[in-house]
Amino acid sequence: MKTLNVDLGTRSYPIHIGTGLLDKPDLIRSHIQGNEVMVVTNDTIAPLYLERCLKLLDGYDIATTILPDGEQYKTLDTLNLVFDGLLKKHFTRRCTLVALGGGVIGDITGFAAASYQRGVNFIQIPTTLLAQVDSSVGGKTGVNHPLGKNMIGAFHQPQCVIADTDTLNTLDDRQLSAGIAEVIKYGLINDAEFFNWLEDNLSKLMSRDSDALSHAIERSCHDKATIVAADEKEAGVRALLNLGHTFGHAIETGTGYGTWLHGEAISCGMLMAAELSHKQGWFTQEELSRTQTILSQANLPVLPPTSMNSEQFIDIMSVDKKNLEKKIRLILMKGIGKSFISDDFDTTLLNETLSDSLSRAQQG
Amino acid sequence: MKTLNVDLGTRSYPIHIGTGLLDKPDLIRSHIQGNEVMVVTNDTIAPLYLERCLKLLDGYDIATTILPDGEQYKTLDTLNLVFDGLLKKHFTRRCTLVALGGGVIGDITGFAAASYQRGVNFIQIPTTLLAQVDSSVGGKTGVNHPLGKNMIGAFHQPQCVIADTDTLNTLDDRQLSAGIAEVIKYGLINDAEFFNWLEDNLSKLMSRDSDALSHAIERSCHDKATIVAADEKEAGVRALLNLGHTFGHAIETGTGYGTWLHGEAISCGMLMAAELSHKQGWFTQEELSRTQTILSQANLPVLPPTSMNSEQFIDIMSVDKKNLEKKIRLILMKGIGKSFISDDFDTTLLNETLSDSLSRAQQG
Repeated sequence: MKTLNVDLGTRSYPIHIGTGLLDKPDLIRSHIQGNEVMVVTNDTIAPLYLERCLKLLDGYDIATTILPDGEQYKTLDTLNLVFDGLLKKHFTRRCTLVALGGGVIGDITGFAAASYQRGVNFIQIPTTLLAQVDSSVGGKTGVNHPLGKNMIGAFHQPQCVIADTDTLNTLDDRQLSAGIAEVIKYGLINDAEFFNWLEDNLSKLMSRDSDALSHAIERSCHDKATIVAADEKEAGVRALLNLGHTFGHAIETGTGYGTWLHGEAISCGMLMAAELSHKQGWFTQEELSRTQTILSQANLPVLPPTSMNSEQFIDIMSVDKKNLEKKIRLILMKGIGKSFISDDFDTTLLNETLSDSLSRAQQG
Repeated sequence: MKTLNVDLGTRSYPIHIGTGLLDKPDLIRSHIQGNEVMVVTNDTIAPLYLERCLKLLDGYDIATTILPDGEQYKTLDTLNLVFDGLLKKHFTRRCTLVALGGGVIGDITGFAAASYQRGVNFIQIPTTLLAQVDSSVGGKTGVNHPLGKNMIGAFHQPQCVIADTDTLNTLDDRQLSAGIAEVIKYGLINDAEFFNWLEDNLSKLMSRDSDALSHAIERSCHDKATIVAADEKEAGVRALLNLGHTFGHAIETGTGYGTWLHGEAISCGMLMAAELSHKQGWFTQEELSRTQTILSQANLPVLPPTSMNSEQFIDIMSVDKKNLEKKIRLILMKGIGKSFISDDFDTTLLNETLSDSLSRAQQG
């Protein structure tokens, strides 16, 4: 087992990564104060891991809330189901929420923990690659609004994160690829060496080699934790973690939450960011090709949905959280591993990027 | 104009108290960054003060959201109306929300500001006595759940509070009395001198003497700000501000939000706390009589609703946010101005207090 520490002063917490962690009760029990624990999970994960999770928590006053699975349920209404359960059990401010599942479960549970009685503790047990490398780390919690993804939420740090890589064995291929999209993202943002490693080891990741997965998760969490520690509330450098996300969120919002997986949308979004960077003269043709190749080899989409048009992209991208006043801000690249925050790109080139991608998608 | 400072380090903010403040644009404009401002108010306050408020904000990119008036609308659904408005306007993280109204508007708007894009600025313009002395000060924001009052929310401090005492001239008598309940609370908590002053000056407050009102508001805000500065997140002493609230919230929840005004429920709750303190031998008969007299003279209820019974009180009080594990915690008194947090009162005496009050209420 590897343990990384996210350094946030009094809100610091450990991320444990390894196999067999769901059989180690001390890891989780040492982070629970009081006696009240609610496990929040979904109807896909519950049959697989809920019983083992409850066994870890033997002796506590336990409640469980099982939500429907899918991004389309990351809403205020679903959030309220967690509050219903907490209040029916008369749980107090000293309760702990445990998020057992992927990114959606982590985001909803974290926001429930941030808001229940104005803030209680929570623990993340991410069961998807995407959640293990991204959404469980950094304290971003929240739900979607029909007009924008993750528009309602809070920064709320967990007490600890327990990433048991064994849980990836039950992940379907599409979900595995979606997680790999976020892994590739860290290489593109600021870790060219890791990007090279990913190019060399992608087939191992795709065949679920546990050593390769462990390394990728650890390196991704390390890269993310370093950025989060420097800028917890996203006043600056943390926005880099949004590479591909402005385009990607537009796809998720435009197609209806749950149609594309988050990682799939981010894959397409990263290639769009790479293409715009290339059109600006900042990203070489070779770097663009390498980016497209690794995403395609990971069975990730690189073309936008044919149901969308440029105006829809621009409209949704205009409400992104990174934007200041009315200007769209994007994460662009001056090379692999050299991303930066930009609002002075050429909007004509942005429109060209969108229309080029969309017409290629139309042509199939 | 008097200005008090709430001392919370980087989250410190001023409270301006006085007449004619809604005609001083600089007070509010100096606390707005960026260009986007949404005013949130209700359908009672909008016809009275919205136009003047918008005039203060001339030149900004302004949106308004007008909510239905009443505690029964302090819900997640109403909160979502604020998010709808913000997203339709494509407002960014640099927007500012302005809460123009009473405690419900302040609590909803503050929680919307805490949650929109994980946190934006907000400004309080409280227009009721209760909001001016209590809910606009201290950063508690949130909404109700059918199973418990204020159970969903966040600590989120405003940029400033502008309490224009002129707005109290349009307050109806019932609302004025409800505000006076919270003013009396500060005397009972830790300010016996202020309690004496209130006994001497209650008729002036009831007749809306502006000097008396200004003094009462300033002293109340000062008393509250001192406690909040010592314990922003209610880990200890801040719970004293909940005197009367455990009983009072049970009344509000048990009768259905909006039936009793918050201040009315707190009045009855404070007398119940006084009676239990008296039964414990901590609070003299004379102090109990003085408490009952001043509340009655303020036209406030001192008996619980006949529709409720003891079991219902205990059941609702069991989910109060102050409780640790399953034990009810109350704010009790060892004299006027000598309140303390207690969970080692005699539960038999609590039951007696409830049944005595309820049977007196039954007898009319």
